Amino acid sequence: MSLDSTVHAKAIDLIKLNYEMTSEAGSGHPTSGASLAHIVTVLMYAHMRYEPSNPAHPGADRLVLSEGHAVPIVYAACADKSVMVGKDKDSWRAMTRADALTLRQLDSIVDGHPNPVEGFPFFDAATGSLGQGLSVAAGLAIAAKANELDKRIFVLIGDGESREGQIWEAVDFIKDHDLKAVCPIFNCNVYAQSDIVSAQQSRKATEKKLAAAGYEVLVIDGHAPKEIIEALNKHAEVQASGEGNPIAIVAKTVKGWGAVSQQGNGHHGSAVKKGEALDAVLAEYDEVAKECGAYALGGLRIPDMSPRKSVKKEAGAVVGFGDALKQFGMGDAIDAGKIATRKAYGVAIRALGHVNTEVFSLDCDVQGSTFASMFAKDEQINSRFVECRIAEQNMMSVAAGLSAGGKIPFASTFAKFAVRGYDQIEMAVNSGANLKIVGSHAGITLGADGPSQMGMTDVGWFRTFTTMKRKDGEPGFYVLTPSDGYQCYALVKEMANYDGPCYLRTIRPDTEFLYSDDDEFKLGGHEVLCKGKDLLICASGYMVHVASAALEELYDAGVDATLVDMYSLPFDEEEILDLANECDGRILTLEDNYGGGLGSAVADVIAADGGGFEVNQMFVKKCPKSALSGDEMLNACGLGVEDVVREAKEMLGIS
Amino acid sequence: MSLDSTVHAKAIDLIKLNYEMTSEAGSGHPTSGASLAHIVTVLMYAHMRYEPSNPAHPGADRLVLSEGHAVPIVYAACADKSVMVGKDKDSWRAMTRADALTLRQLDSIVDGHPNPVEGFPFFDAATGSLGQGLSVAAGLAIAAKANELDKRIFVLIGDGESREGQIWEAVDFIKDHDLKAVCPIFNCNVYAQSDIVSAQQSRKATEKKLAAAGYEVLVIDGHAPKEIIEALNKHAEVQASGEGNPIAIVAKTVKGWGAVSQQGNGHHGSAVKKGEALDAVLAEYDEVAKECGAYALGGLRIPDMSPRKSVKKEAGAVVGFGDALKQFGMGDAIDAGKIATRKAYGVAIRALGHVNTEVFSLDCDVQGSTFASMFAKDEQINSRFVECRIAEQNMMSVAAGLSAGGKIPFASTFAKFAVRGYDQIEMAVNSGANLKIVGSHAGITLGADGPSQMGMTDVGWFRTFTTMKRKDGEPGFYVLTPSDGYQCYALVKEMANYDGPCYLRTIRPDTEFLYSDDDEFKLGGHEVLCKGKDLLICASGYMVHVASAALEELYDAGVDATLVDMYSLPFDEEEILDLANECDGRILTLEDNYGGGLGSAVADVIAADGGGFEVNQMFVKKCPKSALSGDEMLNACGLGVEDVVREAKEMLGIS
Repeated sequence: MSLDSTVHAKAIDLIKLNYEMTSEAGSGHPTSGASLAHIVTVLMYAHMRYEPSNPAHPGADRLVLSEGHAVPIVYAACADKSVMVGKDKDSWRAMTRADALTLRQLDSIVDGHPNPVEGFPFFDAATGSLGQGLSVAAGLAIAAKANELDKRIFVLIGDGESREGQIWEAVDFIKDHDLKAVCPIFNCNVYAQSDIVSAQQSRKATEKKLAAAGYEVLVIDGHAPKEIIEALNKHAEVQASGEGNPIAIVAKTVKGWGAVSQQGNGHHGSAVKKGEALDAVLAEYDEVAKECGAYALGGLRIPDMSPRKSVKKEAGAVVGFGDALKQFGMGDAIDAGKIATRKAYGVAIRALGHVNTEVFSLDCDVQGSTFASMFAKDEQINSRFVECRIAEQNMMSVAAGLSAGGKIPFASTFAKFAVRGYDQIEMAVNSGANLKIVGSHAGITLGADGPSQMGMTDVGWFRTFTTMKRKDGEPGFYVLTPSDGYQCYALVKEMANYDGPCYLRTIRPDTEFLYSDDDEFKLGGHEVLCKGKDLLICASGYMVHVASAALEELYDAGVDATLVDMYSLPFDEEEILDLANECDGRILTLEDNYGGGLGSAVADVIAADGGGFEVNQMFVKKCPKSALSGDEMLNACGLGVEDVVREAKEMLGIS
Repeated sequence: MSLDSTVHAKAIDLIKLNYEMTSEAGSGHPTSGASLAHIVTVLMYAHMRYEPSNPAHPGADRLVLSEGHAVPIVYAACADKSVMVGKDKDSWRAMTRADALTLRQLDSIVDGHPNPVEGFPFFDAATGSLGQGLSVAAGLAIAAKANELDKRIFVLIGDGESREGQIWEAVDFIKDHDLKAVCPIFNCNVYAQSDIVSAQQSRKATEKKLAAAGYEVLVIDGHAPKEIIEALNKHAEVQASGEGNPIAIVAKTVKGWGAVSQQGNGHHGSAVKKGEALDAVLAEYDEVAKECGAYALGGLRIPDMSPRKSVKKEAGAVVGFGDALKQFGMGDAIDAGKIATRKAYGVAIRALGHVNTEVFSLDCDVQGSTFASMFAKDEQINSRFVECRIAEQNMMSVAAGLSAGGKIPFASTFAKFAVRGYDQIEMAVNSGANLKIVGSHAGITLGADGPSQMGMTDVGWFRTFTTMKRKDGEPGFYVLTPSDGYQCYALVKEMANYDGPCYLRTIRPDTEFLYSDDDEFKLGGHEVLCKGKDLLICASGYMVHVASAALEELYDAGVDATLVDMYSLPFDEEEILDLANECDGRILTLEDNYGGGLGSAVADVIAADGGGFEVNQMFVKKCPKSALSGDEMLNACGLGVEDVVREAKEMLGIS
């Protein structure tokens, strides 16, 4: 009973602060916090093994708050426990109650939703866009397993939130990979924003679905301390033994627990007004404290962390592309003088996997197409291959979790299907993750399969992140479109060596070699393939080859053009301006996707300069369809060699 | 037995053609087709009520092939049944076997994956990006119900595909809305691309999950004609009676059925080589035909379509914004002189709902934030409100289905969460859908909730579609960012009157009225708010108000600027160039999201012109966080009034 009293007392304390914080901020979701108060209390005061003095400890148990809007209740616990906060470890300090009351303010470390990069290292990932936390936890669990850490990862998931399909992708994924370290806790507090949750998300329906997915489901009263503790202990046992089905906890809770005035429909996401209204709610809690015999009798203690080490190994040097091809039995490509960049990616990720044990390869059942299969089928390294099946949202968040666990995840699928995970990718960027996305079959050179498989908007979307900067001053994303195998291989190495988000765009058809192992490529770089004075052609990927063929014809017509392989966004703006200047300011850009990509990036620079340069953008201006070859599709979209020749001549006034 | 024989004979015929087509194309997925052959045969020859002479008949039963890569088997049946094909109804002709053999060719009407806009009206929606078909079917079912049509919608879903969370969003949605017209058929052929499907997608697991979700599950042998027919008849009964749980069919099938050489792992997505290899496979089928007693004994007949009418009502005139505000008890806003555009959207969709019975409102449990609640709570129209709960992917595909059913769906959620449905939106664009997306809380003026709730990349992504054209010559998307309530209201009306995809971007804070009911706005339009000669400021949404405040200060400093409210992408390029010209080519663009949006759209035009104009783009250049107000956040991101004044002065060399 003393435990019950103490947990109630602490939970009520936290709930009250959670109301005060949101009232002070004038917004937030205090009733969601109240529904989680007892679970958070048990976890953070008596169950999770962590050190408030080092919330980022790699060996510590982790808490992922998937329903991010409930965050004030966790902030309240952290303030009470003096958990360290601050942007850099050097400037960490113990969180205070005063910090908590700065919720949502511009200079506050406690953001409206979990946001580790603003100074809250207790969290691994930004959440708040719903349905992602369970996948992030799965990634953390895989990283922990690889590091031989027995830590557990607790995930708090809302009942309304569990309508998101990604939750069920994660449920399947955790079962597939037997990630018993993950402890999913479904918070069934009945009310969503607009109404009672669907009967499909009722406590009973959730229980049935989890059982159908092969879980052992523990249904508890989420406000009964003993039941919470027993369920968590059961999870610990199952994790330790490794036996049986994974555990999922389904907690019956009350939204606005303890304050009748805050319960029922219409109390989602509304803070109580400061002053009388807030005082009345706080008084309700004082009454409830008496009713349920809440006294701080002590007895809550954070368990010790068992001595654990994180194994981080030195990465060796990666061999050259030519050697890697021979080593992997693909020497024929050298003789043929060509290879598809998607294949070069496969070679690169496999070679990298051998020398860098932090590198993971993830794929969504298309490894034979993306060539992640080269990693997946190599028995020396494929313990670090993660088959995510056909579920892109989950893959992207798992990758974010792996990154938070210190790994370097390369997540590959078709560029078209990567779109499914854009929100998850953005949340990873917000989390400061070290994410490598690989989109294959990009652009219209895919040909035969048609537009349902072609990445057409990927450059446009990822480019938005190249226009903003991360806290370290680096761009939000590097977008890399290699034109040949050597370049692709080198860029994959660069991606692994760089700590931040990169998107690699590979294509289906073979492209001839333009480079060798002696050429160097860097994030933010470009390569001048030939220099002229009449016209600057900026191209990337397959379009470099189209431009190259066009240049031969143009040369015969007396045109002396510069061709730049613009394999990176962003790029060195000054250098591109200089090259344009040398060509009298006439620029032709080529890309195999819809507009808003490379051409716009160049236009941004030129227009900002105001030097009177002219940018003629060639890109795909209609919805593509199937065609038997990539070249046929390029011609159909006005992007063939002859189209480039014609446009170039028109720009130069040559008939 | 005669039925069995006949179905086997027909199925084998179709399978053979399905192999021949893919061999001719040199790519495709014939083994997936073989696994569906008997189901497709029963459906298209003996069960579905449709007219081959009018595959687009609004009253006909529909087939949605969610696993789009299996499409050759459906093409084979359509060729055999002389189903009409062609881009426009005027040029329709009966499909032939020769048409089938043009699979994947540039000029073919049979694309690599289902693609209605290329001339295949039998399909309602482009599929091939997996996991979307069941949601599309749900949308078709809602449209049919509204039109009092008793048609049924059959959906073929792959087992590997059912890993996609969207499938389970749709499963919940169909149960929630009791859409018994939808007949989901899970094709459990065991093999995915890279391997056997996960045990989580086994036939048994799928059966359990569907039962847990409240379905009556019929497990059948998908190659046993009688079992197929019985299950489909049971579905018809349940639909007709309206009693009991919805039906789902789980079919055990064999990938590469009939040809042992084509079965097992490694036979996904590989065509058989023409010549000997193909002949050998076809010979296998001839043998199988003998073994299973396949003879075309007749007896298959497409059932008659019951006489049904589609009810299409005339839309009346929508009242003005001022009147609508008063009518809905929001006259206070007129006195206050301001309203948030998200609220104006609520007013507009409600007013529209009253006069246009084709308009549907969809929302993902945020109706109180997007103000779709105004439609949802109006009992005269809310039979056309569709609560989609927290599942954005499903909502976007349901909207695509509603559009295919002739409705005008407005799908609203936070701009940030709409990202979850980008792939679904792109597939809807590919399908030629009439989709209206409404993203609220866009940009950084959301303030308090932080970056997990702010739409930052939406303009960049939707803009890629503004650079390409649909078959009707219209842009792939109109992107609309209204700056005040009157404009928002008028644009929602325009969206409804236009047949094509539009994205409306609304914001959280109130903005002062700039316009009245007398002002006219159009897709592709812009509004010149004041005209000067020193500087052209292009802004949209909230930034129009920031610019307006800056202009006052600039005016005092002797600067005479033009301010254009660029509420639409794309826009009239010539007119913007003219305005820039009148301001000596100095342009300042303002937006409250990451780059790649309005500023880049303007830069594209200016750079293409090459006239020496200068575009200074102001946008968000770092990841935002929480702040108590929108203005505070704007200032923190360098987009406040003073920032605009300073930039403008710098451009003009004024200190």
